[in-house]
Amino acid sequence: MRDIQPVRWQDGHLLLLDQTLLPHREVVLEITDHRQAAEAIRQMRVRGAPAIGVAGAYAVALAARALQSRQWDGFLAELEREAAAIGSTRPTAVNLRWAVDRMLRRALQCASSAEACHALEEEACRIHQEDVEACRALSAHGASLLPSEGGVLTHCNAGALATGGYYGTALGVVRAAWEMGKRFHAFCTETRPFLQGARLTAWELVQMGIPATLVVDSAAGSLMRKGEVQCVIVGADRIAANGDVANKIGTYSLAVLARENAVPFYVAAPTSTVDLSLPSGEEIPIEERPAEEVTRWASVPTAPAGIGARNPAFDVTPHRYVTAIITERGVLCPPYEAALRGALADHVRA
Amino acid sequence: MRDIQPVRWQDGHLLLLDQTLLPHREVVLEITDHRQAAEAIRQMRVRGAPAIGVAGAYAVALAARALQSRQWDGFLAELEREAAAIGSTRPTAVNLRWAVDRMLRRALQCASSAEACHALEEEACRIHQEDVEACRALSAHGASLLPSEGGVLTHCNAGALATGGYYGTALGVVRAAWEMGKRFHAFCTETRPFLQGARLTAWELVQMGIPATLVVDSAAGSLMRKGEVQCVIVGADRIAANGDVANKIGTYSLAVLARENAVPFYVAAPTSTVDLSLPSGEEIPIEERPAEEVTRWASVPTAPAGIGARNPAFDVTPHRYVTAIITERGVLCPPYEAALRGALADHVRA
Repeated sequence: MRDIQPVRWQDGHLLLLDQTLLPHREVVLEITDHRQAAEAIRQMRVRGAPAIGVAGAYAVALAARALQSRQWDGFLAELEREAAAIGSTRPTAVNLRWAVDRMLRRALQCASSAEACHALEEEACRIHQEDVEACRALSAHGASLLPSEGGVLTHCNAGALATGGYYGTALGVVRAAWEMGKRFHAFCTETRPFLQGARLTAWELVQMGIPATLVVDSAAGSLMRKGEVQCVIVGADRIAANGDVANKIGTYSLAVLARENAVPFYVAAPTSTVDLSLPSGEEIPIEERPAEEVTRWASVPTAPAGIGARNPAFDVTPHRYVTAIITERGVLCPPYEAALRGALADHVRA
Repeated sequence: MRDIQPVRWQDGHLLLLDQTLLPHREVVLEITDHRQAAEAIRQMRVRGAPAIGVAGAYAVALAARALQSRQWDGFLAELEREAAAIGSTRPTAVNLRWAVDRMLRRALQCASSAEACHALEEEACRIHQEDVEACRALSAHGASLLPSEGGVLTHCNAGALATGGYYGTALGVVRAAWEMGKRFHAFCTETRPFLQGARLTAWELVQMGIPATLVVDSAAGSLMRKGEVQCVIVGADRIAANGDVANKIGTYSLAVLARENAVPFYVAAPTSTVDLSLPSGEEIPIEERPAEEVTRWASVPTAPAGIGARNPAFDVTPHRYVTAIITERGVLCPPYEAALRGALADHVRA
């Protein structure tokens, strides 16, 4: 299987596989400027919570390089300003803010602009490498939960494309279970309006050689009712302290439908997706994207003039619908507050 | 408000507003041949259970005219064959089969091809007129159920376009409630893959001047969870004797989400949509449409080569999720079996 790398760092340049053009065209954007990087994140040329965390870290490294000639105080002040701009391009995924904050903390440990530039490039590469390792570990932990046959349904794209590369989160678990010899059938929802399921997850599943079927988002419930789905597995953009999960719009509906049909509902995410500062999902900011993403497709209008549209990119699934949260530190079960705090405390000690 | 007429009969020709081109182009197809009519139904140039019932009736009238020169026995045998072909173009909506069967029964009351041709044209016009009246009546019955403020969500298109014209079913209730002075906000789901919500319901709502917002299908659950939806109202393609409802794919999901959020879930349909011959929804045939409707849009592929796709056009909502069924004979409440048999018995007596 060909390894998928949505984000690469090469000779001091950020290389992004342009996900708005997949699956029909594989175009790699070579980015040398942090503002270009921020714009690529905003336009979803790179997307997926862990992937935008990694891309955001590289964007901060690019910002540092652009500011290298500044005096140390001015460097830090400007870096904070640029980092804030990078961190605010997409508000829901906490990984982006987490990565940007970690980069700033690293900068504060330095004593000069030159030292910081070097250190931040290294730190971004470390964040990237840790993400790949976290996904590999959580994929292995989660694989045992998947059925040996029947159907596994996923929503949006939580594959290699959504992360630092190679594995992915929900799709990493799917891949690891398949590599263990489990022989299920994968279902992916197309995931309107951006079609991450149809364009990206379907593409990854075809490349992995896992038999898979694409359905419209609203067909998932009916598949569950007919007994064709043995588990649902999704990624996450932010997990609050109580285990509430923000993820792609439609996730909440799938979780309710899964519980109604006694189908396990798993969330797979690295601990960088956990935000213990928020007591519940109600406090997670939900990005509202442009209405045109709903009312146009491939430049063709899908709706009449005069109709309003709303385009919330994410929703919140209350923790009571979540069967387990799969992290690189193991599979967490309810009650989630204690389990999440435990997993993150281990992390601090590690 | 301009009246919308998806099906008209004029000078012995069937005029269909081509719904595949809406809302961007209003093209009326002039159909003189029953096979053209059948093909227009199959291609969803006319769609919506009541509308394809009416169009199917006119198609049988066109078939009769094409066979007019045949001897009486041959005429009847050929008419049955052509009627069966018309009736099988779309399997789920019972209105089509119901209308075709009613046309054949009318033919059997005649004594000659010439008499039958004349009688069948009249009968098709009667079916059409009755459908318009049924929609007007059910709209009036249902209007009192809608909230005076807050949100009303509908799925797919159950408007004038889906029926004989003027009112519609679910959207007819919405219109009647609005005309009573209720001031809610309408939400319509885009309804993948055919986008009846984005293309047709949004168009009708704009013309009615009702404030409305379009959302992707998978956003409906989140709107309900946030308290923005006070009721869900949909049409139906077939209602089994126990009250189970076949309707556009995604309806089942909305019904489950409505119950989970204590939101009433209403089904609006004329009694021609009821099929007492089927004990439950499990026996309703569900049309599987071409995979390309999911994997392409506006001729542009949305998914990679090599991915399978399924495209069930309908799903079944078990009656326990349905708060009430709104018909031209009144609002029916559970237990539905008795209520539906009662409503249809009245009809036979009437």
